Amino acid sequence: MQIIDGKKIADEIKAEIKEEVSRMLEKGQRAPHLAAILVGHDGGSETYVANKVKSCEQAGFQSTLIRYEDDVTGEELLQRVHQLNNDASIDGFIVQLPLPKHIDEQKIIEAISPDKDVDGFHPANVGRMAIGLPCFVSATPAGIIELLRRYRIDTRGKHCVVLGRSNIVGKPVSLLMAQKATPGDATVTICHSRTANIADITRQADIIIAALGQPEFLTADMVKEGVVVIDVGTTRVPSAETKSGWKLKGDVKFDEVAPKSSYITPVPGGVGPMTIVSLLRNTLQAAKTTVKS
Amino acid sequence: MQIIDGKKIADEIKAEIKEEVSRMLEKGQRAPHLAAILVGHDGGSETYVANKVKSCEQAGFQSTLIRYEDDVTGEELLQRVHQLNNDASIDGFIVQLPLPKHIDEQKIIEAISPDKDVDGFHPANVGRMAIGLPCFVSATPAGIIELLRRYRIDTRGKHCVVLGRSNIVGKPVSLLMAQKATPGDATVTICHSRTANIADITRQADIIIAALGQPEFLTADMVKEGVVVIDVGTTRVPSAETKSGWKLKGDVKFDEVAPKSSYITPVPGGVGPMTIVSLLRNTLQAAKTTVKS
Repeated sequence: MQIIDGKKIADEIKAEIKEEVSRMLEKGQRAPHLAAILVGHDGGSETYVANKVKSCEQAGFQSTLIRYEDDVTGEELLQRVHQLNNDASIDGFIVQLPLPKHIDEQKIIEAISPDKDVDGFHPANVGRMAIGLPCFVSATPAGIIELLRRYRIDTRGKHCVVLGRSNIVGKPVSLLMAQKATPGDATVTICHSRTANIADITRQADIIIAALGQPEFLTADMVKEGVVVIDVGTTRVPSAETKSGWKLKGDVKFDEVAPKSSYITPVPGGVGPMTIVSLLRNTLQAAKTTVKS
Repeated sequence: MQIIDGKKIADEIKAEIKEEVSRMLEKGQRAPHLAAILVGHDGGSETYVANKVKSCEQAGFQSTLIRYEDDVTGEELLQRVHQLNNDASIDGFIVQLPLPKHIDEQKIIEAISPDKDVDGFHPANVGRMAIGLPCFVSATPAGIIELLRRYRIDTRGKHCVVLGRSNIVGKPVSLLMAQKATPGDATVTICHSRTANIADITRQADIIIAALGQPEFLTADMVKEGVVVIDVGTTRVPSAETKSGWKLKGDVKFDEVAPKSSYITPVPGGVGPMTIVSLLRNTLQAAKTTVKS
């Protein structure tokens, strides 16, 4: 059994990106520039955006944080999005979700130019990914694929069972795992809340990607020996062991599933650290296109 | 065992569409208007477009056929696409594929306004479908879903095995079958050329959608009793029985699989007749939006 160390891989990739940024600067090009729009003062969103900004700085990117209060109108946000679309000094930008309820989130997402949509949430990017065209893949599925690649896990012709059909993980990672690519080329089964006899299916899996958001859902009796397990779950559960009073739990009962696995991601320290790296990679890619054109 | 009669369902839907067009005309609205661009003189494309135009007329639509010779430039086509995008008298249009090799097909597809893309091939429509937003679904997957709906086949929680991962059938129908909808809500497995032990998987299926393009691939030993079989294959194979010298073969060995099935589509006369109907439905939907706005 080998632990897939997402933290280590993420650090390696950050170093590679930093290296590439240095080379861009040496050539007289400017550094990649990511902008983030943050609305309101939700604790989770504040933390996520702060981490993104910090990671940008570590990688040598320029970053711009644009803040709005909760009472911003959809129209104001749309105008700002259009402005960022047309600002040649910004390579990519994100709008931190969720937005306040009075704002049509989907309308904001679709206003972002697909060429600057480094979160990969615009339907045109989702569609391009589905068709197998160059695109920005969203952070979590891209991070999962990169972990499989870096650990050289054989996926071709394997049976990959995806637990969950969310737009941000289950559906896109299913498409990526099924497509003719490496990693990829797997036989993929998508399971969800309506799936009957789910254990009969997971027991057939060579690879399980668990993204249901149900803490410790996947137990030892549900997997076969040698399975590869990617745990995307990050549910906060109350804990007396931590200062904060909670800790993160994955969708996998790690202690009992790990001994049967060939590879397994821990929570935290597995898929999580890869998501910010995916955002940096997308922004770098956007910058290279901008700089080139 | 019940034969799923695609011809009959398609005729019913055409009659419903015609009825709806009559009501639009009675209200003083204009008829839906579909335009088709046909490049060159490929026999297959000529036949497909002629059938589409004929079906439009039968449904009371207006139709416009725009022809170009094989030597048309990509730039000329792009200009025509832009013109159609901006022509308020056209509700939707299609560019018959394939295009001559010197033309960048994907560039043409992406130039079509997603609001007029009644073939549903634009990445923005593919992405909207993947996310579960209102969109134009392409003809074959939409036709399959409609057949399941009209025959009230229970899909919720069933195991649906899709054979083939093409952009026009396998991938979109997998997403539609997995999404929270009726029909839909199925556990979906996508199989393809790299799948190991495919018969072990198909034997578990409650529903099989075969879209590999391999004549008579699915045999009786590969299915369980009571399976629902949707055959999307349409390969021309030489035949001494027909005047043309060929006949259409599906991906299913019909004679031996049918007795084990609860429902099965024949080839021809199953999924085929539904595809033009899907195009008409999309055009009607586009027209209703245009007329409304």
